[in-house]
Amino acid sequence: MVTKNQIKLVVSLQQKKYRSQHGLFVVEGKKSVKELLDAGLAPFKIFVEESQEYFEAQNSETVTKRDLKQMSGQTTPSGVLGVFHIPDVKTSADADWVVVLDSVRDPGNLGTIIRLCDWFGIKQLVCSSDTVDCYNPKVLQATMGSIARVHISYLDLEGYLEKTKLPIFGAYMDGEEVYGTQFPEKGILIMGNEANGISEHVAQFVTQRISIPQFGQQTTESLNVATATAILLNEIRRKS
Amino acid sequence: MVTKNQIKLVVSLQQKKYRSQHGLFVVEGKKSVKELLDAGLAPFKIFVEESQEYFEAQNSETVTKRDLKQMSGQTTPSGVLGVFHIPDVKTSADADWVVVLDSVRDPGNLGTIIRLCDWFGIKQLVCSSDTVDCYNPKVLQATMGSIARVHISYLDLEGYLEKTKLPIFGAYMDGEEVYGTQFPEKGILIMGNEANGISEHVAQFVTQRISIPQFGQQTTESLNVATATAILLNEIRRKS
Repeated sequence: MVTKNQIKLVVSLQQKKYRSQHGLFVVEGKKSVKELLDAGLAPFKIFVEESQEYFEAQNSETVTKRDLKQMSGQTTPSGVLGVFHIPDVKTSADADWVVVLDSVRDPGNLGTIIRLCDWFGIKQLVCSSDTVDCYNPKVLQATMGSIARVHISYLDLEGYLEKTKLPIFGAYMDGEEVYGTQFPEKGILIMGNEANGISEHVAQFVTQRISIPQFGQQTTESLNVATATAILLNEIRRKS
Repeated sequence: MVTKNQIKLVVSLQQKKYRSQHGLFVVEGKKSVKELLDAGLAPFKIFVEESQEYFEAQNSETVTKRDLKQMSGQTTPSGVLGVFHIPDVKTSADADWVVVLDSVRDPGNLGTIIRLCDWFGIKQLVCSSDTVDCYNPKVLQATMGSIARVHISYLDLEGYLEKTKLPIFGAYMDGEEVYGTQFPEKGILIMGNEANGISEHVAQFVTQRISIPQFGQQTTESLNVATATAILLNEIRRKS
């Protein structure tokens, strides 16, 4: 039996403020919940709609369709809703390349970038404090469980970049054409905000400005930050 | 003065059925409308909210905020709404590479792929008839005016692929690693459906199966179709 307070708690986790306060976040859908469990994330509670087939999980609880609908952030709830503890942020000592995001605001973009990091074996993602929260439901929808395999930290980028000894590559519209770029074994790749690119106070730390060559007419918009990240990570990995 | 019938017409264009019937589509936002005008698309009517600064365009009409809100498909209308004639589909005789989409369903993915074609100078995009409509408002939101510069046709893929003499590359999870692939000057790249990849009746025409190497753990989901297209188009262009 789900209590009113439990429903209230789950609903509150749609907001970052309450996610931070409780150290919890919500993932919906059997597939995503299973992936997080497989990846070793600690479940606080897994709510399973009574009509769903048997779902074996620690802390799981059967609920009515009506209760699940009240807890869900989706118009059509998918039958399984997992509440997980936000994991402690570990910095990955064996990370070779680190992706740094400077004020990426779109949840879909962040979700796609996390999934790309996972694909390309990037273990460490560092976000400026004003980058969208990685436990935002829309981000989680786009990550497909990759969130469990990439270490994500939010911090003051200036402090972080000041201390690193790694070479720092920044993505620009007018940088050196990436096809000729030699990438070292370890390094940092900075991707900037959707509208304004890399901010000035971060730009001062960039040691090499790179860009993706354009083949169409010059009137074209810049590439979306997630697709640009895809191309640049592919360039880094193909050369290593 | 906008008539009720005009409002009704514009609202109906949110649906593919009425877009086909009237040969019209809607784009919202001053920037996107300007891009389509610059690209030479023919405006049927441009509705401009009275509070907006002067907007010079053929067939433009000032409307009240209330009328614009009624016509708009957005929660917060952006002040300019353009209704354009759907252009005749031309096949681009000088296209070197053609991208073929086999049942891509997500509007955001199609929008991103159109923008990528524009960036990489791909002039011809061929879609299976069950691919999402390129004049869907959510697709247009993601294309940012690239829709005016890429020729898009919807047709029976089997008939199309049967006739071509170009080499046909297909994106697969288990194809040849793309880093070693030699790309000719002209060719076709087929990208498949989000969940099921390239369908069987299309697969028979593929002359070379290619894939993007994975560097993370093997548990990872496949790449999203739009990011995979980004990486493969970049691979094709970097070698030409």
